[in-house]
Amino acid sequence: MPINPDAVGATGTAERSWNSKDALLYAVGVGAGAADPLDELQFTTENSAGIDQQVLPTFAVIIGGGAPVMREIGEFNFAMLLHGEQAITSHKPIPVEGKVKSTSTISAIWDKGKGAVVETTTQSVDAATGEPLFDTRSAAFIRGEGGWGGERGPSGDQNTPPDRAPDLVVAARTREDQALTYRLSGDRNPLHADPKFAAAGGFPKPILHGLCTYGFTGRLLLNAMCDGDPARFAGIQGRFKMPVFPGEELSVAAWRDDAGAIFQTSTGQGVVLEGRVNVRD
Amino acid sequence: MPINPDAVGATGTAERSWNSKDALLYAVGVGAGAADPLDELQFTTENSAGIDQQVLPTFAVIIGGGAPVMREIGEFNFAMLLHGEQAITSHKPIPVEGKVKSTSTISAIWDKGKGAVVETTTQSVDAATGEPLFDTRSAAFIRGEGGWGGERGPSGDQNTPPDRAPDLVVAARTREDQALTYRLSGDRNPLHADPKFAAAGGFPKPILHGLCTYGFTGRLLLNAMCDGDPARFAGIQGRFKMPVFPGEELSVAAWRDDAGAIFQTSTGQGVVLEGRVNVRD
Repeated sequence: MPINPDAVGATGTAERSWNSKDALLYAVGVGAGAADPLDELQFTTENSAGIDQQVLPTFAVIIGGGAPVMREIGEFNFAMLLHGEQAITSHKPIPVEGKVKSTSTISAIWDKGKGAVVETTTQSVDAATGEPLFDTRSAAFIRGEGGWGGERGPSGDQNTPPDRAPDLVVAARTREDQALTYRLSGDRNPLHADPKFAAAGGFPKPILHGLCTYGFTGRLLLNAMCDGDPARFAGIQGRFKMPVFPGEELSVAAWRDDAGAIFQTSTGQGVVLEGRVNVRD
Repeated sequence: MPINPDAVGATGTAERSWNSKDALLYAVGVGAGAADPLDELQFTTENSAGIDQQVLPTFAVIIGGGAPVMREIGEFNFAMLLHGEQAITSHKPIPVEGKVKSTSTISAIWDKGKGAVVETTTQSVDAATGEPLFDTRSAAFIRGEGGWGGERGPSGDQNTPPDRAPDLVVAARTREDQALTYRLSGDRNPLHADPKFAAAGGFPKPILHGLCTYGFTGRLLLNAMCDGDPARFAGIQGRFKMPVFPGEELSVAAWRDDAGAIFQTSTGQGVVLEGRVNVRD
């Protein structure tokens, strides 16, 4: 049964609480402290002397998932879903613990022929104060669900690096078992752990969560461009190009511009994520 | 102010719930899946095809901590506390989720001159059924708190390997950031993460939780001697000999006997944990 393209406009709200431990678990899930456990203690510990715990800005994708509006498109094979694009606009640093109220809308459904793209946008406010915390936008590519004769839509965010060497390159190695920790932040899709499920999706072995690659990238850019200060991180948008296998090294190249930088995250196989990061002074 | 040696006999009860995620987080904290993420999926995932989640037997130390009877000994410098010995007797496999009722007693306090040894024993039963799940015994060595003229006590469990080559040797490397994940299972002592706190305790850098080394050892012995089946794991007792620094490789040598094996866990620095494991047919 094909997906329902008329689900565009479906909306819903959800609340989500989190605590210090959730933020710490996310941080180690995206490699904080892996290169040097004495670095990034503000993200990995809550009780180091003279260091206040802070929350990685990309934790927004964990707590700002919003309402399950994707259900409105009908049933599909979950193993065929790939994360296409993800954007975060950060209004202020995420508190160490709290609750957000999120309003989600299916903002677009496109027929890409070989698959469908479903775009969801979500605004999340602090449930206690009503203050906007962050907005997120997510595009899912569902293989095998296109071809109903719908509109193809735009080709997505275009973030083409300029024709010069990058201004900075930072790298981090993911672990072979990276997904086993990352999944505990909430995305238990067995595509990332179970070899049988991965095989059913056409992969030789489980692949890393796209949002784990995204979290690594955001963390490396936060450290390289904002001195690790979440208050200076205005947002990030990225487009997933290729799966990453746990254990691969991620190399993030960035080309600075007035608002931040265009970036490309690569493994030995090529570019896996490209997009831009926005930075405040 | 010295500790109070008359606290022997102090008792208390506590209840503790846990869920599937707690067990998964503990498993990755003690290195399950680190050597090969496709191994040990019964401990690291809850939804792999054809695999039921199981709980590592050493998770008993997390949920069976029991009542905080250690408070009865009075105030001391927490940075001076080292885990001396830990024993677990497993009556049946720990369920994936549940609640235990634990009864703890300070069973001994010894004056070792340079420090004090405080021994706590705890029986934990399934709170729903009353069935015994496991018993634990823990001995803490508190540097600087001895010398009140009390009894020295026995020299602890003696598990001396026989004078022959071990019957099996299994090894695993801890990660540099191992303690950052392990601590999320509950022991947030900054001795294991904060370099300033570690320095105040006389260590050049944060040391690994003794119970993390213990969990690695129990897991390796479970896999090597019980085919990874928690129902065959009858218990483990170990004595900590030396701190481990995150990143060091742990090598576990075992000498089989009728009930299981005597084991020694070593790093490049020497033996860090020695004891015995008991196995059922």
